[in-house]
Amino acid sequence: MRILGIDPGYATVGFGILDYQGMDYRPVEFGVLLTEAHTDFNGRLARIYEDMCYLLDQYRPQEMSVEKLYFNTNKTTGIMVAEARGVLLLAAAQRGIPVFEYTPLQVKSAVVGYGRAEKRQVMEMTRRILHLTELPRPDDAADALALAICHANSAPPAY
Amino acid sequence: MRILGIDPGYATVGFGILDYQGMDYRPVEFGVLLTEAHTDFNGRLARIYEDMCYLLDQYRPQEMSVEKLYFNTNKTTGIMVAEARGVLLLAAAQRGIPVFEYTPLQVKSAVVGYGRAEKRQVMEMTRRILHLTELPRPDDAADALALAICHANSAPPAY
Repeated sequence: MRILGIDPGYATVGFGILDYQGMDYRPVEFGVLLTEAHTDFNGRLARIYEDMCYLLDQYRPQEMSVEKLYFNTNKTTGIMVAEARGVLLLAAAQRGIPVFEYTPLQVKSAVVGYGRAEKRQVMEMTRRILHLTELPRPDDAADALALAICHANSAPPAY
Repeated sequence: MRILGIDPGYATVGFGILDYQGMDYRPVEFGVLLTEAHTDFNGRLARIYEDMCYLLDQYRPQEMSVEKLYFNTNKTTGIMVAEARGVLLLAAAQRGIPVFEYTPLQVKSAVVGYGRAEKRQVMEMTRRILHLTELPRPDDAADALALAICHANSAPPAY
């Protein structure tokens, strides 16, 4: 099973792709989709959509795991992240890829076994689970990999 | 100049298209894009995108006027509306259509001349400005026409 984890945003979208079978996880690719700060917002949405479509067509993930949004601090930024998230969900829907949502608490619990784990602990456990020699960078890519691991852990085991 | 007004949503997207020249406004088409309640959310996003692309390609508006979002009540619904709005903005961006945002206060001020006008007053003034024999229906379509009028009024006059 190939899973794509997505940490949504409009300036930076983190992505992490992994293959898993049983308890074996193999990282396939991870990184970030970036948009330029000095282009208008709608142009950034178009760029995100284009890059996301490329990613989906290139790596053909079977399921997608994305961070659940909740607004509490900056409402304007929250709206813009949600708009970008809509575009990311659209690209998945157009290819029939099922999307699953997880809160940061669920991700921490799944990866570290403790919902209040520090960011650094999550990154370190992500590194170990995926047998990486270094911590996955940048942060958004690490978050996306953790989302993919969280979904893999949540899926029913294939017997 | 042809303007498309959009009242964003994920269950119902109101649209209103008008042509204007000087002080003359002519309604071209108005109505709603609907998605089925019992389809999954991402499927609804895909449907909205598809219908919006059809609308843009069919009527070829030169500018788009869309309601500015602000969250105060239901945050979950707000996120879903913002995600749908992102998909609507994407369709416009892919066609190079400039998008302008207005708050409900700005729309009421532009159409009725009074920011605290009742919904009914806005609909009645929209009817008069567009020389319609009846109030535009449904409400979301009327809101979209009012958004288009608001943008037409805000644009610099063409001498």
